[in-house]
Amino acid sequence: MKIVTNKAVFNRPLYLESGRLLESYEIMYETYGEMNADKSNIIIITHALTGSHHAAGFYEGDRKPGYWDALIGDGKAIDTLKYFVVATNNIGSCFGSTGPMSLDKNGKPYRFKFPILTISDIVKAQKSLWDKLGIGHVKAIVGGSMGGMQALCYAIEYPDFADIVIPLATTAYTRPWAIAFNKVTMEAIRNDPEFKDGYYDSKDIKENGLKGLAVGRMAGHISYLSSGSMNEKFGRKYVAQDGLYELFGRFEVESYLEYNGYNFPHNFDPLSYLYIIKTINIFDAARGSDKLEDVLGRIKSKLHLISFSGDMLFFPSEMEEIKIVMDKIGNSDKCTYDMIESDYGHDAFLVEVEKFEDKIIQMLEGKYE
Amino acid sequence: MKIVTNKAVFNRPLYLESGRLLESYEIMYETYGEMNADKSNIIIITHALTGSHHAAGFYEGDRKPGYWDALIGDGKAIDTLKYFVVATNNIGSCFGSTGPMSLDKNGKPYRFKFPILTISDIVKAQKSLWDKLGIGHVKAIVGGSMGGMQALCYAIEYPDFADIVIPLATTAYTRPWAIAFNKVTMEAIRNDPEFKDGYYDSKDIKENGLKGLAVGRMAGHISYLSSGSMNEKFGRKYVAQDGLYELFGRFEVESYLEYNGYNFPHNFDPLSYLYIIKTINIFDAARGSDKLEDVLGRIKSKLHLISFSGDMLFFPSEMEEIKIVMDKIGNSDKCTYDMIESDYGHDAFLVEVEKFEDKIIQMLEGKYE
Repeated sequence: MKIVTNKAVFNRPLYLESGRLLESYEIMYETYGEMNADKSNIIIITHALTGSHHAAGFYEGDRKPGYWDALIGDGKAIDTLKYFVVATNNIGSCFGSTGPMSLDKNGKPYRFKFPILTISDIVKAQKSLWDKLGIGHVKAIVGGSMGGMQALCYAIEYPDFADIVIPLATTAYTRPWAIAFNKVTMEAIRNDPEFKDGYYDSKDIKENGLKGLAVGRMAGHISYLSSGSMNEKFGRKYVAQDGLYELFGRFEVESYLEYNGYNFPHNFDPLSYLYIIKTINIFDAARGSDKLEDVLGRIKSKLHLISFSGDMLFFPSEMEEIKIVMDKIGNSDKCTYDMIESDYGHDAFLVEVEKFEDKIIQMLEGKYE
Repeated sequence: MKIVTNKAVFNRPLYLESGRLLESYEIMYETYGEMNADKSNIIIITHALTGSHHAAGFYEGDRKPGYWDALIGDGKAIDTLKYFVVATNNIGSCFGSTGPMSLDKNGKPYRFKFPILTISDIVKAQKSLWDKLGIGHVKAIVGGSMGGMQALCYAIEYPDFADIVIPLATTAYTRPWAIAFNKVTMEAIRNDPEFKDGYYDSKDIKENGLKGLAVGRMAGHISYLSSGSMNEKFGRKYVAQDGLYELFGRFEVESYLEYNGYNFPHNFDPLSYLYIIKTINIFDAARGSDKLEDVLGRIKSKLHLISFSGDMLFFPSEMEEIKIVMDKIGNSDKCTYDMIESDYGHDAFLVEVEKFEDKIIQMLEGKYE
């Protein structure tokens, strides 16, 4: 698989939904495979909260591939022998695209001067990249979780852009349940003295971590799993060297959360995290309209919705609602809805690819009804 | 309703499951109504994580009554005109019973020298109180959540003690899902510099709060509610004076969590909280036996299990499992199981009393099959 990683620079402002603007911005992106002559084989991948432009394949020396390597690659469901796959790092994130710790025109990190971004803003920035790359139309857009919000946003706001849109494990508007999990993270970060009210030194955080972000990430991990998958993964197994009657003795699920929580801040910027969860919280596909009916009525792409029965973050009923509204407004022929049986939880869209890859293949071939 | 609040002092050791002992201990307790001549009208109430001996009625000047006032009182389901109701504050807690911030024999707070307690230890301490009060047998034991663990423990470990045992919204052994929520709290507390590694000044915490405990409590609140009840309670309502495009602008669910989270540490001791969640984490009704079958086989009381369909902390399937095992071992006649339809979440056992109070009345009258 041919992987190309690149950065695009935009020296003109991006006008944002909030009324503010980003004076200039950069977008990291990665491509897999080759674009065909008539540009009819392009698939866009949109990423979730902590994802990046690195969706598939291995970088030299890495032990772990891109986050959706199970789905994307030569001979895989999103077949890079056949399709030209492109993935960007969202603006606001911390993997090379412009975010809150990028330098402003005075050469200092934006920090709190960075504007709040919406899903629409992120997609708008991506659109300027597609323009630059001469991509005026794509075959498909595929994304899960926050990536699914972007996919949905493409379908609504750029109805002629994609033939096929496949949002997974997502929602049309973020509910208080998901916002509450994000709130725990937000408060945990803000309360950490090492966060220094946002005026931390990035190098310090990378080296020493940030306990507040770690604790918040642990709360996040609960929402990415499920009661069932935790039972299966950990049960009541206790860490062998810990005592059952020690106050800080640990069950294995605790050790898992510690490991994943405390490692995370070495690789992710806290302000980026705050900005991205804000973007998720305020996502509402129907904003600016009276109701979901109105915005879903604009869709021209074929919309394939995939939820997971055990998703404890964006519950299946939230995606089913989109299908119900599509049916109600006479768009049944443009929309399919599937709930994949899975006990894994929200992260099933990343982890249990084998359960839905056949559907993706058919969807991309235009054979799924 | 006649309310009597009292403290019992025990100047002999309590031998604990861990092999350690409490050299002496005190238990706060409260009674409602009058014990009848043949002591046949006694009902014990066992409390949840942050409950206390104050289960019902108003203290002078208080705006809020005891935590289960909807259920307990003159003419209510647990009718104090008819029954003599007794409630204790669990040892390990911070409302007058001996806990980690109580003074040891050297006149200093135990802090980490306080031993880990199990549900069995807490029940054992209560039993010594019943002995002191001349109560050798009771009509019923009723408790929800951690109180339900205690009720179940009474049924298993003291089979001749109660005619009727009614555990609500609980489990026979704590699953990793609940342990994970507690882990977030535990780490948030430990990481807070004001916790001072456990060597805080109680007065400071009461006055200033403890942000780590507040954040942990927010995570707890998520598990006490449900996606559905949050949708109903808050929807996507935004705090009027906050801006949608302000990083720390708040949805109402966030404001709710802030209010409840940050107020909490003014009224609850952090070390007590750590010790109690540890007790919950290590609860396993089958410990010491090979399987649940063995311990449930000891039960002689009539066991009425009540779960709530929307409970996101202890899922209905966890209580149903107890019923399934009871049936399997030929104890069907001793056990009923009801799942109350409720979208509220775990706290339904406190908040939606009207949905199950009729059942409780029948259960206490021995008329529920």
